[in-house]
Amino acid sequence: MGDLPVVQAMRYASAGGKRLRAFLVLETARLHGIAPERAIWPAAAVEALHAYSLVHDDLPCMDDDDLRRGLPTVHVQWDQATAVLAGDALQTLAFELLARSECSPDAAVRADLVLGLARAVGAQGMVRGQALDIAAETAPEPLTLDQITDLQAGKTGALIEWSATAGALMAGADTGPLSVYARKLGLAFQIWDDVLDVEGDAETVGKAVGKDAEAGKATFVSLLGLEAAKSRAQNLIEDACNALDCYGIEAECLREAARFVIARQS
Amino acid sequence: MGDLPVVQAMRYASAGGKRLRAFLVLETARLHGIAPERAIWPAAAVEALHAYSLVHDDLPCMDDDDLRRGLPTVHVQWDQATAVLAGDALQTLAFELLARSECSPDAAVRADLVLGLARAVGAQGMVRGQALDIAAETAPEPLTLDQITDLQAGKTGALIEWSATAGALMAGADTGPLSVYARKLGLAFQIWDDVLDVEGDAETVGKAVGKDAEAGKATFVSLLGLEAAKSRAQNLIEDACNALDCYGIEAECLREAARFVIARQS
Repeated sequence: MGDLPVVQAMRYASAGGKRLRAFLVLETARLHGIAPERAIWPAAAVEALHAYSLVHDDLPCMDDDDLRRGLPTVHVQWDQATAVLAGDALQTLAFELLARSECSPDAAVRADLVLGLARAVGAQGMVRGQALDIAAETAPEPLTLDQITDLQAGKTGALIEWSATAGALMAGADTGPLSVYARKLGLAFQIWDDVLDVEGDAETVGKAVGKDAEAGKATFVSLLGLEAAKSRAQNLIEDACNALDCYGIEAECLREAARFVIARQS
Repeated sequence: MGDLPVVQAMRYASAGGKRLRAFLVLETARLHGIAPERAIWPAAAVEALHAYSLVHDDLPCMDDDDLRRGLPTVHVQWDQATAVLAGDALQTLAFELLARSECSPDAAVRADLVLGLARAVGAQGMVRGQALDIAAETAPEPLTLDQITDLQAGKTGALIEWSATAGALMAGADTGPLSVYARKLGLAFQIWDDVLDVEGDAETVGKAVGKDAEAGKATFVSLLGLEAAKSRAQNLIEDACNALDCYGIEAECLREAARFVIARQS
């Protein structure tokens, strides 16, 4: 007997993508001397968590997207029930991976990784951001810049911050510099998503574009203008890189990743 | 500014119910000398987890139920997007509650509670059971008794077992006797749900009844007959009670709970 459709869908939804969050975990772990065979567990966890959020966000009752990473979304490829369940089980899997002893020999680290991830993605974090985003669609007024910034801090920022601080947490080191790096990076990432929604084509981006403008939705681009949005993102990336000064040349790979965020076409 | 709808929906979905799972946590914790101010955390976690599963199971693309615990289901009271997000955040909340230091001073216990819960409710546990249940609706043949037993072991059994073993786990005690108790209890619980679907009325049960028979779905009652199903449940409860012999009179409250499972009208 083969895998149930829900398991096939979990695998399908976890394939591809940029792996930015996993990269941040692995690279910040390396920076703090954590072995890759440990760091792979939180790296896999954050990608499972991210995949869950995409599968649910794509549902007809949410953002209603048919295309993701250039392929049909899970509810198109299977059905909505499978998409709900696959997302649910991917979230569960993320916490399972963090709680396994392979992740860290120190149970306090495992519990702290779980606690931090839960706070980043729950009703005060990622889900809050997504709920604000959905509410914005039917709001009488477009969101302000402060509101969009707040929304995105939840929707994408919190998980990026967890990813970028996981390595320091595993090593018992100060997470402060990486928190600053991640917050700047996360905001730049989202501004650049809005830029791609205007400038990109669906084939390269791998998902529908132009949806926000069509829906009359406020974005960083609609509020700041295209050029100002780009330069805001560039400034944020500069700040993100500077936040890593204490790590010196060792953090160059993280700085390059930050620069990639505002160079990417998808 | 008041709570977002998603937070209101989380609270709404967590209210009411029998609290069987929380009871199992609290009572098995008491049995092992765990303070109630500790045990309340996994007890709250399991109810949040259970509430998430109900909110998602009730969605139109899943079981499509309008009534739960005598009230409109979350997607009826709000909308589907809010129901998906509220369920998602309730699952997250469950893991957050387990990872908090208030739950246990021993981080290894916290990590083990997280790991056990994740295994119970993920793609090898509760989600698997729900996926099998949905697949059964369109299967050419009704399920066999073995298949229904397997399905229910995932759908309801695994979470009940986690609940009934949490106290022993927190105390570092043998979870064996409580595992046996929980497996018998969980199966009896599900058989009794099928009995109520035939014998109960919607007002007392608090949700739609007669749906399974109407859908031509195999249930313990359709496969065994009503009287044989009842006596199977009674035998299971007797076995469950006997499994607690090693605890003597101290486990009487758990035995009473087991007897309640096959006396309940809702």
